[in-house]
Amino acid sequence: MNEKTIPYKIYLEESEMPKAWYNVRADMKTKPAPLLNPGTLKPMKAEELSPVFCDELVAQELDNDTAYFTIPEEIIAYYKTFRPSPVMRAYHLEKALGTPAKIYYKFEGNNTSGSHKLNSALAQAYYAKKQGLKGVTTETGAGQWGTALSMACAYFDLDCKVYMVKVSYEQKPFRREVMRTYGASVTPSPSDTTQIGRKILADHPGTTGSLGCAISEAVEMAVTSEGYRYVLGSVLNQVLLHQSIIGLEAKQALEKYGITPDIIIGCAGGGSNLGGLIAPFMGEKLRGEKDYRIIAVEPASCPSLTRGKYAYDFCDTGMVTPLAKMYTLGSDFIPSANHAGGLRYHGMSSILSQLYADGLMEATSVEQTAVFDAAEQFARTEGILPAPESAHAIRTAVDEALQCKTKGEEKTILFGLTGTGYFDMVAYEKYHNGEMSDIIPTDEELAASFAKLPNVE
Amino acid sequence: MNEKTIPYKIYLEESEMPKAWYNVRADMKTKPAPLLNPGTLKPMKAEELSPVFCDELVAQELDNDTAYFTIPEEIIAYYKTFRPSPVMRAYHLEKALGTPAKIYYKFEGNNTSGSHKLNSALAQAYYAKKQGLKGVTTETGAGQWGTALSMACAYFDLDCKVYMVKVSYEQKPFRREVMRTYGASVTPSPSDTTQIGRKILADHPGTTGSLGCAISEAVEMAVTSEGYRYVLGSVLNQVLLHQSIIGLEAKQALEKYGITPDIIIGCAGGGSNLGGLIAPFMGEKLRGEKDYRIIAVEPASCPSLTRGKYAYDFCDTGMVTPLAKMYTLGSDFIPSANHAGGLRYHGMSSILSQLYADGLMEATSVEQTAVFDAAEQFARTEGILPAPESAHAIRTAVDEALQCKTKGEEKTILFGLTGTGYFDMVAYEKYHNGEMSDIIPTDEELAASFAKLPNVE
Repeated sequence: MNEKTIPYKIYLEESEMPKAWYNVRADMKTKPAPLLNPGTLKPMKAEELSPVFCDELVAQELDNDTAYFTIPEEIIAYYKTFRPSPVMRAYHLEKALGTPAKIYYKFEGNNTSGSHKLNSALAQAYYAKKQGLKGVTTETGAGQWGTALSMACAYFDLDCKVYMVKVSYEQKPFRREVMRTYGASVTPSPSDTTQIGRKILADHPGTTGSLGCAISEAVEMAVTSEGYRYVLGSVLNQVLLHQSIIGLEAKQALEKYGITPDIIIGCAGGGSNLGGLIAPFMGEKLRGEKDYRIIAVEPASCPSLTRGKYAYDFCDTGMVTPLAKMYTLGSDFIPSANHAGGLRYHGMSSILSQLYADGLMEATSVEQTAVFDAAEQFARTEGILPAPESAHAIRTAVDEALQCKTKGEEKTILFGLTGTGYFDMVAYEKYHNGEMSDIIPTDEELAASFAKLPNVE
Repeated sequence: MNEKTIPYKIYLEESEMPKAWYNVRADMKTKPAPLLNPGTLKPMKAEELSPVFCDELVAQELDNDTAYFTIPEEIIAYYKTFRPSPVMRAYHLEKALGTPAKIYYKFEGNNTSGSHKLNSALAQAYYAKKQGLKGVTTETGAGQWGTALSMACAYFDLDCKVYMVKVSYEQKPFRREVMRTYGASVTPSPSDTTQIGRKILADHPGTTGSLGCAISEAVEMAVTSEGYRYVLGSVLNQVLLHQSIIGLEAKQALEKYGITPDIIIGCAGGGSNLGGLIAPFMGEKLRGEKDYRIIAVEPASCPSLTRGKYAYDFCDTGMVTPLAKMYTLGSDFIPSANHAGGLRYHGMSSILSQLYADGLMEATSVEQTAVFDAAEQFARTEGILPAPESAHAIRTAVDEALQCKTKGEEKTILFGLTGTGYFDMVAYEKYHNGEMSDIIPTDEELAASFAKLPNVE
């Protein structure tokens, strides 16, 4: 097809939107390792998970075989307010780089949550409503996931209780107010609304909280409240399933113009965006139909794939969750405080961990000043101000495009632009003021963290 | 056409994008009154305006006859990164209201500037670059216009000097950092970079600045710096010309589905959005081809159309600009400090003022708690968190839709959703905390302000 006919933004018609999520596990020869009960070390059963998660989500979580899950009409009706999201051609960035590479990005930031998180939030809220529940609980750090969930709960008329790490609640009031606009109740954590919160407050009166503590409070509130369940925005198999809509739309949009990517790049924290973006491409690769280079990009300050251990570990710092087999830095690993972007999770989705272990994808890590360099170049050429998380993928996409320039290769690159950075201007300010630095964990620090991993084979 | 085939989002193809801006003045029987030189009270000539504005923009400003101005290819190439913008069907809001009315909105918020301002910023930056200038200067209050201009200048590689009202510079650092990301220099005003700034600092050492002062500094910097011109984001004829792309796209998108609006609603501060949205519809009305109800919505705290005088007045509080004939509250009118949204301008675009004076459009004013009620209802149903400015239009659209419900009328409503409220969470917080109130100017206050109008017939 003539190059000139490829628009800046490729949109699918609403009628072309995917009707089903794709479950990449169905095509994996080695399935991701099951969640284990930390007491018995036996695989978790549905009945053990159902006090915490909705029944249908538990079923999705445990299903390694069904390739497609029909997206309910009620979810599609809301998806249509912000989906299909565009695949954009980075013409202006390509020109600035002087690269022969063709760069495309799937942009998930054009909704008020500012990221792809809304895709799974809607699904999780829908199933909670369908089960007749009153509400859901969750935790949030900076607030991206909490915002997405509060939007979803407003739409499905479901109560939404968000435990927000106290320091974020106080210092980042804007996301909190977005959540309140959608009717969520936002509680600074630790709080006196839970037993664990009261205990922490008694033991550490001046604490500003942590994500681990907020998770513990959210889970406790869910399991002790009639008609509530807990929901989570990343890491879980069910979340990657819902996020497959990113990749399904991207693949279909590119195919409309006869475009096949050579390289697919996504940032990776818990893996929700990357897992969603690559799903249908990985499916082809697993079935031996096509080959792609797939690159996970993580921060050098939180390098679970590139420097972590592939082992069973707790999913939370409080060590109350089931054990998951994943690339992990240890469940109490905390990235340097100077790390500005998200992607702070100590582990990686079990699905992506298995794919990486099987050599089906690559991983790389990037330092944060280089990430913000790329973010600024992208903003000035393409217009969109990226989220720091997304800018990790931009960094690697730019590096690959510059390699193409050196080698004179016309490769086609697709990366995931997961969101916008409007609520991250404090980090940008640090960058503008030259106050940003790169601190990466030492081998000794990681070794000490690995020594604390639970001993499970 | 079958109702069911109308999508949630109507997009034009890039190939269908308007190729020319539409100048509604060409179809006006009574042309808008000319700008006057405040010294001679004679109409301003091009040579008087060219030290301040680029030559092509001066030509556009003064041209009451040319109906279409071709949009340069260079501008279209950037427009394509965020345009065409969608016309959205508010299915979820309609359902929540239980109205038989069909509600559409043209959404201009999906770009990093967060509003329609980028449409004119790109045009103004392009003409400055084409004239071989080094840069442009402007003022900004909360920062929406400054952000749009800094994006445009980054793209056209033009220096961008923004004078930001000092209190906003200090208390609203996020927009400032967005501008810096795009390479703009942002100076808190008053500053020591201009004569007027130094004088104000000497006379009022602790001042936190004002928009009037920032305008004076930006104009002084432009006229005293080699290769610089001043640019403005609203009110001017040229700005309404560029913003006509909003209405042109909206009209074309609706026509693809055979939809004709009965009522067209837009918020109005200086008039840039409303003038752009209604332009082609008003053209049909002026040419007697069709009729539409067109409603300008302004804040009750700054009611220039509904309670102002149609008279010659200064465009700025510093009284250094030419005189414009417009509905005005007086050039030193300042809305109550409790007014949270934008739309704080004391006057109204001369084009819109003349159209209103000729009975071609209606105007209404709304109070701010009612505006935020509508904003929140819209966010919860349609997902998008609206800018407080845009929420004025939502308020009136909802009121009209509820009237349709009462009367059982299936009217089609189109309103302009000019932008998103991500940087306005302080106002939303006030609303959530019940700290928002409605203060409107008294008749005595307005009479005192009118008494100071320049005496020009």
